[in-house]
Order: sequence, then C-alpha cells, then structure tokens
Amino acid sequence: MSGRIRSEAFKSKVMSAHDAAELVKNGWNIGFSGFTGSGYPKAFPEALAAVIDAAHHQGEEFKIGVWTGASTAPELDGALARTGGISYRAPYQSDPEMRTAINNGTSYYQDIHLSHMGPQVSQGFLGKLNLAVIEATAINEDGDIIPSSSVGMNRTYLEHADAIIIEVNSWQSEGLYGMHDIYAPAGFLPPNRVPLPIQHPGDRIGEKVMKVDVDKVIAIIETDSPDRNTPFKLLDDDSRAIANNLLDFLGNEVKQGRLPKNLLPLQSGVGNIANAVLAGLLEGPFEKLTSYTEVIQDGMVDLLDSGKLTVASATAFSLSPKAAERMNDNAAHYSKKIVLRPQDVSNHPEAIRRMGVIACNGMIEADIYGNVNSTHVMGSRMQNGIGGSGDFTRNGWISSFVTPSTAKGGAISCIVPMVNHVDHTEHDVQVIITEQGLADLRGMAPRQRAKLIIDNCAHPDFKEPLREYVKLAEKKANGMHTPHDLATALGWHVRFLETGTMVQ
Amino acid sequence: MSGRIRSEAFKSKVMSAHDAAELVKNGWNIGFSGFTGSGYPKAFPEALAAVIDAAHHQGEEFKIGVWTGASTAPELDGALARTGGISYRAPYQSDPEMRTAINNGTSYYQDIHLSHMGPQVSQGFLGKLNLAVIEATAINEDGDIIPSSSVGMNRTYLEHADAIIIEVNSWQSEGLYGMHDIYAPAGFLPPNRVPLPIQHPGDRIGEKVMKVDVDKVIAIIETDSPDRNTPFKLLDDDSRAIANNLLDFLGNEVKQGRLPKNLLPLQSGVGNIANAVLAGLLEGPFEKLTSYTEVIQDGMVDLLDSGKLTVASATAFSLSPKAAERMNDNAAHYSKKIVLRPQDVSNHPEAIRRMGVIACNGMIEADIYGNVNSTHVMGSRMQNGIGGSGDFTRNGWISSFVTPSTAKGGAISCIVPMVNHVDHTEHDVQVIITEQGLADLRGMAPRQRAKLIIDNCAHPDFKEPLREYVKLAEKKANGMHTPHDLATALGWHVRFLETGTMVQ
Ligand SMILES: CC(C)(COP(=O)(O)OP(=O)(O)OC[C@H]1O[C@@H](n2cnc3c(N)ncnc32)[C@H](O)[C@@H]1OP(=O)(O)O)[C@@H](O)C(=O)NCCC(=O)NCCS
Ligand SMILES: CC(C)(COP(=O)(O)OP(=O)(O)OC[C@H]1O[C@@H](n2cnc3c(N)ncnc32)[C@H](O)[C@@H]1OP(=O)(O)O)[C@@H](O)C(=O)NCCC(=O)NCCS
Repeated sequence: MSGRIRSEAFKSKVMSAHDAAELVKNGWNIGFSGFTGSGYPKAFPEALAAVIDAAHHQGEEFKIGVWTGASTAPELDGALARTGGISYRAPYQSDPEMRTAINNGTSYYQDIHLSHMGPQVSQGFLGKLNLAVIEATAINEDGDIIPSSSVGMNRTYLEHADAIIIEVNSWQSEGLYGMHDIYAPAGFLPPNRVPLPIQHPGDRIGEKVMKVDVDKVIAIIETDSPDRNTPFKLLDDDSRAIANNLLDFLGNEVKQGRLPKNLLPLQSGVGNIANAVLAGLLEGPFEKLTSYTEVIQDGMVDLLDSGKLTVASATAFSLSPKAAERMNDNAAHYSKKIVLRPQDVSNHPEAIRRMGVIACNGMIEADIYGNVNSTHVMGSRMQNGIGGSGDFTRNGWISSFVTPSTAKGGAISCIVPMVNHVDHTEHDVQVIITEQGLADLRGMAPRQRAKLIIDNCAHPDFKEPLREYVKLAEKKANGMHTPHDLATALGWHVRFLETGTMVQ
Repeated sequence: MSGRIRSEAFKSKVMSAHDAAELVKNGWNIGFSGFTGSGYPKAFPEALAAVIDAAHHQGEEFKIGVWTGASTAPELDGALARTGGISYRAPYQSDPEMRTAINNGTSYYQDIHLSHMGPQVSQGFLGKLNLAVIEATAINEDGDIIPSSSVGMNRTYLEHADAIIIEVNSWQSEGLYGMHDIYAPAGFLPPNRVPLPIQHPGDRIGEKVMKVDVDKVIAIIETDSPDRNTPFKLLDDDSRAIANNLLDFLGNEVKQGRLPKNLLPLQSGVGNIANAVLAGLLEGPFEKLTSYTEVIQDGMVDLLDSGKLTVASATAFSLSPKAAERMNDNAAHYSKKIVLRPQDVSNHPEAIRRMGVIACNGMIEADIYGNVNSTHVMGSRMQNGIGGSGDFTRNGWISSFVTPSTAKGGAISCIVPMVNHVDHTEHDVQVIITEQGLADLRGMAPRQRAKLIIDNCAHPDFKEPLREYVKLAEKKANGMHTPHDLATALGWHVRFLETGTMVQ
C-alpha cells in the first residue's frame, strides 16, 4: 500500500477497481469527483466501463446516471460514454465521446448551472444517489478525506450517496493538505440556511478535510496516475487582441472611478482567451489583484508567482502538464495563496454579488441584441454546457463575453441576427469582446446595442449583411423594441447547415 | 399645508408642481418613485409633461431619461410618454402609452432585472442622475422621509441624484410609519459589501425612514391623490385550474419530504393567476405560511387576515381600490405583519437563495424545451418587461411559470416549438403550468421535457402539431440534444404575423 491510507477502518476496504466496479447495479446514479480534468477517479470508471460492456455482451440492460463536478477526462466520460451505458449525464461535460453520445441521442444530458447542482442534489430533485466515487490525496488516521486537485461536488455526493468508493491517488501531492476549504454548515438547507460568511476571496470558512460515514464506504482503490492536463495552445493574435480590448476597458473603468485601482475579484472562463487575459495582466499595470473564480489555470499561477495576484479562490485546477508538475512540487507553498472550495461556494451567487466579481467567459456566438449562446451549435448540437458562466454573469459586477468574430475559417460569423440558443439573456450581458473591438452595452436599449455590436465587434465580412438584416427587420417587425424578421432571423444558421457557410 | 411636512427646512421649499417642473432641463435623467402603480409622484409628472409639450410647441428639443422602481401609472408613464419626450426608460413598465412609445421607436427602453437596477445606478453604469422625484407619506421634524406605498428604488435615487423633489401625499396613511425597512449599510459597494443579514421574511434590518441631504432638495410638492389601483377581474376557470395544479404540486412536494409542511417563503408574480393561487391557499391545507415577494396583492392581505400567512415581505403594494382602502384604514395593524423593503433587498439573490423562495411567475409563452419568454410578442414587440421574475426564478428553491395554454381566443398557442425571445433559459425553469396540467422538468434533458410539456401543458388543439414539429426536428437536426429545425422553429410566429393565427 502507498501509505496514503492511514485509518485502519479504511485499509480493510482496499480492493481492485474491477472488484469495486462489480458492486455497481444497473440503473444506479453515480456521483463522481472531477472538475475540468482534475481530481476525477482514475481507475474505477474504466473498470466500470468493462463491467457495463460485459453486461451488454450478455444482452443485459446496464445503464447508469453519471453526475460529476463538471467536465472530467477520457478515462471517465470517454470510457463510460463509449459503452453506450450512460442514460443521464449532468451537470457539465466537454469530452468528445460524451458529446457524441449526447448528440446522437444515446445519452440524455441536463445542462445545469454549476452552483445549482449542489442544491438540486440536496433537495432531492435529481432522485436517489446510489454511489459516490471520489478521488482523494490521502485518508487521515481518523478517517478524514483529504481532497485532491478538485473539490467540485465531492462534499455533497459524500453526504447524500448510499454507498461510497474512495480512490486514493498517490500522484496527487500531499502538499495540497490545507489548500481546501470545505464549507458544510449544519443549517445548509432552508429554512435554516445562514449567510455565507465570505467577504474576501481568501476567506477560509470551512474544514481542510471531508468527513465520511465509514459504514457507507464499500471500497477503497489505490491509484498513482496524473490528471489529464491538456497543454494549452500558444497564444495567437486574436486571443491577444481580445485580451487587450478587455484590459483597456478595465483600465478605463478605473479612470472613470467605476472600479478600484486593484480592480475587483476576477473570474475568467477556461481556454486560450482566458489565458491570454491572464498573460496580459502579467504585463499590465494592475497590482494587488485577487481572483474569485472556478478554475486555476496556468496564467493564474504565473500571476501568483509574480506577486501581482495576491490570492485565488476556485474549485479546481485546470493546469498544463508542466504547470501541474510545478503545483505538485510546491503545493504547500501555493496553499497559502490558493483556496479550493466546493463548487456551490466557488460559484455562489451570494459571494459573487457581494464581492462584485468581474466575469469574463467564452461564448459560441452573440446576437446583435446582446443575447449570448454558450452551448449550442446550429440550434440542436451540444458543445459543452453552460458551466459556471451563468453564476458569474448574472451576479458579477461586470459581465463580459469573448469570442473571435468568426469560426470555421471565416465561414461562420460569431455575431448573428439571432442566436440559435440563449444561455445568457440580453438582461445579463454587459460587454461583448472580439478581436475587432469591444461593445459596452451598459445603459443601452436593444437597437442601440445592435449598432454598437455590429460596428465594434463583427468581422468586416459580416458587417454589411448584419446592417442589411437590421434594415429588413425594422421594416418587417411588429414592434421597434427588438426589431426582428422572424422568417429570416435564423436564416444565417440555416444557410450554414445547407451550404457549409454563412456567407451569402 | 397638510401638516405632513414637519421640518422647517423643508416647509420653506413648498411650491407648485408646475414651478417645480420648470426647474427641469432638457437631457436630464430623472429617478421617480413608483412600483406597480403605488407610491409614484402624483402631480409632478403631469406638470413636467406640460413643460415638455410647451417646449416642443416652441420647436425646442426636450427629452428626458425616466428611471423608476418598476411600472407606475397613467399619470406618470402615460403622461410623459404622450409628450414623445422620453428618450430612455428603465427598468420596467406596463403602461399602454409607454408601451406604444417603445414599440413605435420613440423611446429606448432597457429591460433590467429589478435587483440589478440599484447596483447599476450606484456603480455609475447608467450615467448621471440629475433629479430624484419621490413620493412620501410625511416628512418628520428632523427631516427624515417616511415612504409611502412603495419603496422600490427610492433610497438609491435619493442618494445619487444631484437634486431632489419630494411629493408629500396626504392620501397615504400615516399608519404606514414603521412598515418600511430601509437597508443602507455603510459598505454597500464592493470591496466593502457585507452579508445581507436577512434569514427570515420578517427580519427587519434597516431604518423606518429615508435620509436626505436637505441642501439637495429643490422643491416640496403637496398632493392628496390615491394610487392607481386597478381592480382585478373576477377569477375565471383557467386561473382556478392553474392555481389548483400548482397547489397539488406543492402538496406532493411536502408529501415527498422535499418541502416543509408550511412550505417555504412564497413569491408570486402580479396578475389574476397569482391572485387565484393566493385564493387557493386561503382554502387550502397549508398553515403558517410566509411570503418573500415583490408586491402585496389583495389575496395576500386576505391570507394575512385569515392567519394562514404570518408575514409578508415586499417592496410595494399592488392593491385594488377596495383593498387599498382597507390597508389605509388599518396600516398600523398591518405594519406588524408586512415589511416593505428597497427592491434590491426584496429581490436580492442572496436572500432569495438563502431562504429558498418558491417562485411563481406569469409568462407570455414557453417552448417545448423549457425556455420561457416573459416579455416579447412575436419577436419584436415589448409587452411589459422581465421585472423581478429573473431574480426569483434563478435563485429560488423552485421556479415555476404559469399561463393559459392559449391566447387570443385560441389563435395563439402559449406552448411553441421555439420561443421568440428568451428571458428565462432552459437552465432556470423547473415547472410549467397551464390550465391543462403541470410539467415538472426537474432532472430532465431537453427531449424529455418536450414530451412532458406537450403531453401535460399544451392545448389539445396544438398537441399534434407540436408532436409533428418534434418529429420533423429530430429528422432535420444536426444533433439530438435539443432537436430543432431552424428553418421552421419560429414558423408558428411567422404564420401568426401573416395570417392572424398559429392554427394551420
Ligand atoms: C463557448 C466555448 C465552447 C468556447 O470555447 P473555446 O475553447 O474558446 O472555443 P473554440 O474557438 O475552440 O470553439 C470550440 C468549438 O466550437 C466551434 N465554434 C466556435 N464558434 C462557433 C460558432 N459561432 N458556431 C458554430 N461553431 C462554433 C469551434 O469551431 C470549435 O469547434 P471544433 O471543436 O469542431 O473545432 C467555451 O467557452 C465553453 O464551453 N463555454 C461554456 C462554459 C463556460 O463558460 N465555462 C466557464 C465558466 S467558469
Ligand atoms: C407575462 C405577462 C405579460 C402575463 O401577464 P397576464 O396579465 O397574466 O397576461 P394576459 O393573459 O393578460 O396577457 C397580456 C397580453 O399578452 C397577450 N398574450 C398572452 N400570451 C401571449 C402569447 N403567447 N403570444 C402573444 N401574445 C400573448 C395577451 O393576449 C394580452 O394581450 P392584450 O393586452 O392585447 O389583451 C406578465 O406576467 C408579465 O409582465 N410578466 C413579466 C414580469 C414579471 O414576471 N413580473 C413578476 C415578477 S415579481
């Protein structure tokens, strides 16, 4: 044994992933740890996939519900999706094979605000949770669980599952001990809920460990495997331009007296543009920054190292292999500046609104009136999911969305007459940014937004077609508040589906 | 004088509405009190309309920005809209003439979550506020302002306006003194914001009065006029059926152990269905109810009288003339059971999520996948606005939406393939209710929702056409997550615009 399991009561439950997987029954709902490719169980899901495959070969029905923190990795979403045995998936995914299962109709997927998953599970809205499968760094002498590289939904799943399996992964650094802040007050459900006592991103309000009922633990599995950790692409010109547009905007907000000199806590979505923003901050004029966000990316670790960022709160890491190594080697050092919380705390509307978080998230497309689509491609196809973007957008001090102005080599305009799906309504979107420029929609009515978004954000190839749509819409609409020609509002998407391009 | 102005410093500023209106300059932004037809200034707006009309007759430009709490009355929105002089309107309206000005393009309208209006004004996002015009019940000896029948945005406007006009309305009952709870902590903006100290609907956390800087007061106007107070229609069968569906659902939630016996704090939108729900509660089995909502309607006063409702928190009254009379006669009595708060407190995401409010709001239409349109008719035309529905829907314990299954005598299905505008996304809508039945969407993926909504909520005349749309969409879609045929998704609305009916 690895020496990571320090409680006798737990040692006796060690078994192979295969033996543990055989305990699962058709129809179970399973709550897995895992958030943006970190802290997911490494061995059990593939073993379970083999059990499901074997059942299917025998002609037996074997389907499970898969609940997680957010996205996981090929070893979890990929392996289980390939079996065709996922009947229901929530609340977020970004795996190619899981996505295929959703879009070919094999799996039902419920795309849930990440801050809502905890309450919905606790309130019993998603049904019975049969099993929790949670990765840990270690198990203490007294049976406390030290979380690994993500917290996500772990506390809630451990509390509500009928049975528990812990994977103890010795790849995870023991230096993580003390970085986690597991908030679990007695009165967690109404009518007994109390104020969330966070006023600054670094506030610690909970325990370093997770408690479990040892009688519910049916298996302990030992692993020694790295998190998925996809490397980032090199920053391209578009990402840099988008980042600069955002940083200029923030600089001007400071100048106008609408933001303090050290800004307010930053939230940034995942991906390359977010990393470009963080890289821009590294070179930029802002000091003593803080972050209250969902995931810690490479750029954030650089910012902490530079001293420009004083503290970062999140629920998980999303690090490249190189940065993950650095984190693992220096976890004890970083745990003074990083707090990892349950996702219903990292994404809590109460904390986000109170602290006035500056939100910046990626999107698929925006329309001329300021509605944003974060999830759907051409109306029907799921890309990833809404994730925490709604939690931060609705409740933040400023909400901004970023995208290159075109996709698929210019065939698609990311600024369209009407989005094919709405994840963030016109009431919630304040700033839209592309490499072309920035549209500040605050204080604007829909028709004013349309002019600004087309002028500042659309790609030059699509500016005129968008202006023509506006003209047509103003002629045909039954009202001038949000002029639309419903017969052609989605016509750009229809054209793309029929011809492979939005270009006329 | 009425005896309601008890401070010498204020007495000297009394003048006519006309004289006060002449102080306004072209281009000003004015923050008016007023929320759902209560507590709006009664004399000044019409006097200002006359000033604007006179300027227009002289060929002079005269336009103003009109900010309020929410909807007002013909004497405010109507009178000012008629001048054509409203350049910008926020955050909510429901006046026929204001609506016309918005839909014919005369006025820009920004439809803002009611809980966001306070922060956006305080943060300086909507520009300079030149004048606040606020109705009061009385002015105390020491210059404190006793609010009248709504609180709404008053505190924020008084704090941020360059100049202040108070209308003291002696129609408002002096018994209202003590009913208001004006929360205005020192650290109201980040990074100094503190937890909102509300844990139960009746908690009082602020002052009974509003403070003003007397040097900013440029006029005091005396009035003696009733609030608008539209009477309600008699309850019809559809409203009763919808209310019963909701009450059955809540009863079952109690039985399943997902709600306490006395439920959780209730929020209900305005209008007849909401009143039918309240009437249903009066006859129903639930006791010791509480309410954390936006407005106090007739039905809520009945519930308080019956003892079934122990306390109600809101930001304004929305009472019929008869109920308003009863309130005025017994205000001191009711002030023990009713708390009127600023709208950024009555609608605060923090309080709503903490207490687990049960939200129920009206809608224009829902689509088969659970997206809700609360604001737009046929894509372009503004009806009223989103109001507080998003505040309660996103943050409540349960979010439900109600509508009759058809409108315009059956020509319109309120369940459609795709809504023409999204105000509440599929991520936020849990329960949809019509007179036909109820669809509980919790734990459901989009395709599962479609089946449930069509089976349970659509009108019999539209069930088959909806099922045919689903079949077509599943054939044509580029993905089976949310199958749509974008070429015909809005076809029902297009047909209505072209032929006057959605029926094929
Ligand atoms: C919206 C989102 C998918 C953008 O991610 P990204 O990595 O910046 O985007 P990419 O440019 O790589 O685009 C991803 C895919 O969508 C495609 N795409 C982008 N814009 C598109 C558009 N307007 N129409 C159709 N497809 C589009 C890209 O071509 C790419 O397709 P591919 O995988 O076949 O190459 C991502 O930000 C997301 O999932 N957001 C929702 C969750 C979220 O906000 N989380 C953060 C909360 S804290
Ligand atoms: C949605 C809303 C307008 C419904 O109000 P209501 O009084 O129950 O609705 P009504 O049935 O009287 O409908 C209002 C109008 O919309 C029309 N209408 C209703 N459904 C329609 C539909 N699907 N398509 C087109 N028009 C429709 C009605 O015919 C009526 O038109 P009319 O004024 O020309 O007669 C109202 O609830 C609202 O404004 N909601 C948004 C704000 C909110 O939720 N506030 C509460 C937060 S605390």
